[in-house]
Amino acid sequence: MSVSISDVAARAGVSRATVSHVLSGNRPVSQRVQSRVREAMRDLGYVPSRTAQNLARGTTRTIGLLVPDIGNSFFAELAKGVEQASIERGFNVLLGNTGWTSERELFYLETLKSQAVDGVVYAAGAPAPTSRLAEVLAGVPMVAVDEELGELAAATIVSDNRAGGVLTAHHLAGLGHRRAAVLGASPDLVSSMQRVDGFVATWTELVGRAPEVVEGSFEEESGYRAAAALVPRVRAGAVTALFALNDLVALGALRALREAALTVPVDCSVVGFDDIWAARHVSPGLTTVRQDAVGMGALAAEALLRVLRDPAGAPGPGRQVLPVDLTVRGTTAPPPQTGGDDDGRD
Amino acid sequence: MSVSISDVAARAGVSRATVSHVLSGNRPVSQRVQSRVREAMRDLGYVPSRTAQNLARGTTRTIGLLVPDIGNSFFAELAKGVEQASIERGFNVLLGNTGWTSERELFYLETLKSQAVDGVVYAAGAPAPTSRLAEVLAGVPMVAVDEELGELAAATIVSDNRAGGVLTAHHLAGLGHRRAAVLGASPDLVSSMQRVDGFVATWTELVGRAPEVVEGSFEEESGYRAAAALVPRVRAGAVTALFALNDLVALGALRALREAALTVPVDCSVVGFDDIWAARHVSPGLTTVRQDAVGMGALAAEALLRVLRDPAGAPGPGRQVLPVDLTVRGTTAPPPQTGGDDDGRD
Repeated sequence: MSVSISDVAARAGVSRATVSHVLSGNRPVSQRVQSRVREAMRDLGYVPSRTAQNLARGTTRTIGLLVPDIGNSFFAELAKGVEQASIERGFNVLLGNTGWTSERELFYLETLKSQAVDGVVYAAGAPAPTSRLAEVLAGVPMVAVDEELGELAAATIVSDNRAGGVLTAHHLAGLGHRRAAVLGASPDLVSSMQRVDGFVATWTELVGRAPEVVEGSFEEESGYRAAAALVPRVRAGAVTALFALNDLVALGALRALREAALTVPVDCSVVGFDDIWAARHVSPGLTTVRQDAVGMGALAAEALLRVLRDPAGAPGPGRQVLPVDLTVRGTTAPPPQTGGDDDGRD
Repeated sequence: MSVSISDVAARAGVSRATVSHVLSGNRPVSQRVQSRVREAMRDLGYVPSRTAQNLARGTTRTIGLLVPDIGNSFFAELAKGVEQASIERGFNVLLGNTGWTSERELFYLETLKSQAVDGVVYAAGAPAPTSRLAEVLAGVPMVAVDEELGELAAATIVSDNRAGGVLTAHHLAGLGHRRAAVLGASPDLVSSMQRVDGFVATWTELVGRAPEVVEGSFEEESGYRAAAALVPRVRAGAVTALFALNDLVALGALRALREAALTVPVDCSVVGFDDIWAARHVSPGLTTVRQDAVGMGALAAEALLRVLRDPAGAPGPGRQVLPVDLTVRGTTAPPPQTGGDDDGRD
């Protein structure tokens, strides 16, 4: 039989509410009564459960985290950052994996809200219209991470996605490439479009012609399909470099090139985005734009917990943009000597 | 302004409870009243929220999933299986990542219970004593997956871990190895010990001497440290094969061997367990015992949802053991010719 708050209250000769106040520290209780309650707890061997303490505090001490694809190590690392920062502060994290669909994002937001999480860290993969999100989120503090959600977010923590595109364009153009394709562009995602914009603007300026942009998703299969379709043009020297908008897309592209018996980086260079751990384990190692996924998650959790501690004191929407850098490994090299000025399209 | 159940009830001239019963289907409502309620909903443009429907049904239609390391693709795939099976049946999944610690497993179980999830799929990484788990789980149906939890579980879905050890011993002994080490043994985990037992028993029978067993964890760092410590004996030919108890441990071991300028499989063979996607992407590809992580997750969710649908009809603890097979890739080969019968230890 476990000892309840009622048992403690009876033994100390106080109300259950008083015992709760002693546990939560939310209301002043005289030293004399506090001692009596603590003595009763000791006598009865009462161990306050964390849940009971949390209910007494009027909080579940739980935050929700939505990510679009936990199978992508980038989001697993981001989740680790959110968790570490939360657990250090006595919060735990319930994670929802939304599969890049609006419907599931809304479903999870509703669920988390009905389960009274204290707030949400939201890495959107398919954000619903702002009005719909505002309705679902009403009353629940939210911090946007990885993908912008405008003023709905109490704070926003993102990487400098545009800079990643700029760095990649400089690297590939500097190696002598003049025909590139961008793989996996998602027009509905700000993060994706910023990477594309940074690359396209810089590339066009450096090389004098626009790169090809292939729409797709942030999934491996998207990179595989896009690269497979480009194989004939890679063989013809009409495309010599691929900028994949994340590492999974890059790994999919590498697989398609390998199956076509094309050698990276001799026949074609490939650059990814994220620097997931697999980027170091593939052979050759993947050249990629490094994001600090763990750090981004930790900053998002800290921002949310600051808002929860002091809702009134929170300033207007804060936005933190984390720097990225290019990690050069083995998938980039100068272009092959074959191929002329003809891009194979006309 | 959104339309509420009260608005619908007022328009239809019935009580709010009646509207709830029409929505939930939990209580019989006459056809005439049902039509009136549905007409009122149509007139007012009422869209029942999923949350409200779920509350009306007396369920959150949410299950909890605990895994020890979501950064390990094995658990990310298992989570995908749980999700797919749950979402198909209108349930969503809140995931807790427990970091291989009892304290966090208990904390998450308490949290999930306080948030009234309908049940839990529990991949234990550091199970607390049975009595403590029974106390925390009281009233919450639980299905154990990947790691056994005895009779606490309404059902258990695990791989044939012992068979994985047996297959590995046959493969390595068949290649001619006579000196092996097992890396990452966790004495507190049934799954780990079954892999060890299957390997040790078969190896000892085939080779006539016991392999060395190095204790550790299921994390990459554990494999790295264990293999780094074995490097001098690998150089001496006193250890020619490593059985890593999961793929992360194997990848850590490969890293340690690479840093020591040892070539796999020429100087040393390595076998993993799980067949995560990275096993195919490393070079050479990792020989490993394949588990069906997605299938295991799906079966666990289905077992839990069966118990939720029909708690009384559930049979006693059911146990499903899924077959494994050995996927032979590039990290295993016959042992080097150097080294005699001396194992370097005495």
